[in-house]
Amino acid sequence: MNRRMVFYMTGQIVKLEAAVLLLPLLVAVIYQEACLWAILATIGIALVLGFALTLISRPKSQVIFAREGFVIVALSWLALSAVGALPFFLSGEIPHYIDALFETVSGFTTTGASILTDIESMSHGLLFWRSFTHWIGGMGVLVLIMAIVPSVSGRNMHILRAEMPGPVVGKLMPRIRDTAKILYVIYLAMTAVLVILLLCGGMPLFDSILHAFGAAGTGGFGIKADSIAGYSPYLQWVIGVSMLAFGINFNLYYLILARQAKTAFKSRELWLYAAIVVVATAIVSFNIAPQMNGGEETVRTAFFQVSSIITTTGYSTADFNLWPGLSKGVLFALMFLGGCAGSTAGGLKVSRAMMLFSTARRDLRRLLHPRSVGVIKMEGKRLDEASITGASAYLVLYIILFASGCLLLCFEPFGIETNLSAMAACFNNVGPGFDLVGPAASYAAYSPLSKLVLSFAMLFGRLEIYPMLFMFIPSTWTKK
Amino acid sequence: MNRRMVFYMTGQIVKLEAAVLLLPLLVAVIYQEACLWAILATIGIALVLGFALTLISRPKSQVIFAREGFVIVALSWLALSAVGALPFFLSGEIPHYIDALFETVSGFTTTGASILTDIESMSHGLLFWRSFTHWIGGMGVLVLIMAIVPSVSGRNMHILRAEMPGPVVGKLMPRIRDTAKILYVIYLAMTAVLVILLLCGGMPLFDSILHAFGAAGTGGFGIKADSIAGYSPYLQWVIGVSMLAFGINFNLYYLILARQAKTAFKSRELWLYAAIVVVATAIVSFNIAPQMNGGEETVRTAFFQVSSIITTTGYSTADFNLWPGLSKGVLFALMFLGGCAGSTAGGLKVSRAMMLFSTARRDLRRLLHPRSVGVIKMEGKRLDEASITGASAYLVLYIILFASGCLLLCFEPFGIETNLSAMAACFNNVGPGFDLVGPAASYAAYSPLSKLVLSFAMLFGRLEIYPMLFMFIPSTWTKK
Repeated sequence: MNRRMVFYMTGQIVKLEAAVLLLPLLVAVIYQEACLWAILATIGIALVLGFALTLISRPKSQVIFAREGFVIVALSWLALSAVGALPFFLSGEIPHYIDALFETVSGFTTTGASILTDIESMSHGLLFWRSFTHWIGGMGVLVLIMAIVPSVSGRNMHILRAEMPGPVVGKLMPRIRDTAKILYVIYLAMTAVLVILLLCGGMPLFDSILHAFGAAGTGGFGIKADSIAGYSPYLQWVIGVSMLAFGINFNLYYLILARQAKTAFKSRELWLYAAIVVVATAIVSFNIAPQMNGGEETVRTAFFQVSSIITTTGYSTADFNLWPGLSKGVLFALMFLGGCAGSTAGGLKVSRAMMLFSTARRDLRRLLHPRSVGVIKMEGKRLDEASITGASAYLVLYIILFASGCLLLCFEPFGIETNLSAMAACFNNVGPGFDLVGPAASYAAYSPLSKLVLSFAMLFGRLEIYPMLFMFIPSTWTKK
Repeated sequence: MNRRMVFYMTGQIVKLEAAVLLLPLLVAVIYQEACLWAILATIGIALVLGFALTLISRPKSQVIFAREGFVIVALSWLALSAVGALPFFLSGEIPHYIDALFETVSGFTTTGASILTDIESMSHGLLFWRSFTHWIGGMGVLVLIMAIVPSVSGRNMHILRAEMPGPVVGKLMPRIRDTAKILYVIYLAMTAVLVILLLCGGMPLFDSILHAFGAAGTGGFGIKADSIAGYSPYLQWVIGVSMLAFGINFNLYYLILARQAKTAFKSRELWLYAAIVVVATAIVSFNIAPQMNGGEETVRTAFFQVSSIITTTGYSTADFNLWPGLSKGVLFALMFLGGCAGSTAGGLKVSRAMMLFSTARRDLRRLLHPRSVGVIKMEGKRLDEASITGASAYLVLYIILFASGCLLLCFEPFGIETNLSAMAACFNNVGPGFDLVGPAASYAAYSPLSKLVLSFAMLFGRLEIYPMLFMFIPSTWTKK
């Protein structure tokens, strides 16, 4: 284990955080808000901490292996969250540090679960920071640093693989740095288009930028008590469609840019994802129609919620906690499925579900014909056995961690529906759950210990288990 | 597909059912109850149906492959349940056929979920039949027919494998018939011992036999409104320990009989199973202590419920639905885990969980050392890759079917806790769930459609998915 390298990279990330905090600082200056001092102090702390880490642990060797990659990602995200929580805490806008940490982890992991009960009283500077964490966390902070800092871009694939969601990570370009750059450029451009579309619908600039951050990162932090419900049908359609767009594998956008649209549209994951959205929207539409006024409102509300939940964003235009059981059941299932691999969405990912399903189908065939050779294909390519067992192993770890998390929440005086949906909403980075953690409520009622449990669940979910798990296994840290 | 053979074997099973119905008939005669006519009529129907099936489809070829094995098991269990429900229906003691079917499927699958709201008003003859289905279903009806009918015992391993629970089925003796016989002899002897132990505790003979059936099959149908709560602490301890004993792999009892106790006690599944019971009992004891009177009652109640749930029996000595969240959470997790492979218990089985866990651990190692060779051992033997992916595939199918079942229950006006625990309790063959289907309540409130869904869930769970799944896949039925 190249420990120096691990702490060095963590230090780099904290320095980067000092830099990105300049944006909320600017907002605080524009609005002349008191939170500006809290942000300024945080920048100072981040710089001291970041430089201390990078100076003390300047690495002797540049070599990193898979384990270093995992631990760098896990530790960076923890440091990022611990420091990122300071502005909320120092400004007093979130009086308890654990609450601030929960909110920040929820931001970076693009979960969108909130402990705030009166969101509209927050300062503009901190609302901006809160939503901006979604945008940074969506594409990944180590991807960002690889894209912009030349000195760390020479490292290898391990870090990218550990931070990017999905069972298989493709290299778009021969050089990692170029891949990271392209991903961020596409991300930035799509976010900019969304801001413009929202502005066209009459949404104020500040609201537009923050909602674009929330939709782009598939995060879901809103700035109104009723999330998106108060905005016009046009704006709801724009946000609904854009969430869906950010839940698609970014490699496909790259293919389209590279004039290989044909290859992009051959993606089976894309079509399955689209089909699921259509079917789920149809079921929910029929189910909630009696509660709605007219067809357009029904379809819009159903589509918005389906899009919001499958992409694990978590925005809402209605209190879906009050919907009939069938709609809640469909949404609950979508929470676990999640969006496409290589997107900003959370959950298990459509492609991983496809791999698991193919494995099960092959096994059924083998039971009848023991000597049959079962080849599993994904997107036209033959999957190697390591990827296949990898997907199964991921599912097993997911279940074990999910169940353990639920058991830890059992100390709370809440019902199974609340605890189970809270864990599902946090682990899958969705945000709102059902019952006491429904879209009209918040996570404020949980004890500090449970908030920590849920924060770790968000990190495990966003980083797809392995980085966090390896960080906690002592043997990872041994010298050899 | 050797269809003649499939229907021929199903006919044999129905004939066997006519024979086993003689026992409840005898009970009805002894107690001079009107249900005797309903049982007699059912025997007649079973004989006509059985002989019709065996005569019409006398097989030309004796050869059966895996697919025939699966479909024979699935169809036999369906026929068994459909005919077995008739006494309840014809006697009028359960007025609706769907309800009678639910109760019978619940009996044969050793689930123990009931739609009866006033159990103590049932006749002795039908109470006997209801509990007797547990005993038959526990070890398996095709195992029984292979043990007693020489003409069908020459078939091969496929049927045994399809009906016996657990990821791997071992052949104790070179000849299938001897294996089946030994299993049933051990089963019968253990049940007899249990009856004697219950009689020693002052339980009436009728109650003793029926409770022994329920515990031996890990079924859980009681004959009192409060299940086991009204019996003495001695009787509760006896039943608690005996449920645990029937949740152990029967191969181990055979090894002990064959003077290989040392090998039996080396079983890692056995020790893990024991360890889980001890830990779970400890957690629940501490958690429910404030509600109990004294240490013995606390430990007894906690142990009884843990034993009852992990073996998927479903007896209760307390309304665990009113226990604190942590205890309910532990019990909920145990519902899915289930007992040992090769026992009468349901659920995923401890050994399958061990296989899945080993696979996940191997994959973690592979992530760090891509070229490492990962050998997974079970009980000292190296597992082949087919068994490993088989366990993963089972898990995936389990999740898909479980989630689909839950969605079908979403049409009911009940909460997530009720529906989710109902599906968990039926799929894992436990019986009682939480909230509206808790141990003090019944499944009566569900619609006929949902009762059918839950009945199929019980069959899918007891037969471990594959037989039922293949029966529903049209290509299984094609001639070639």
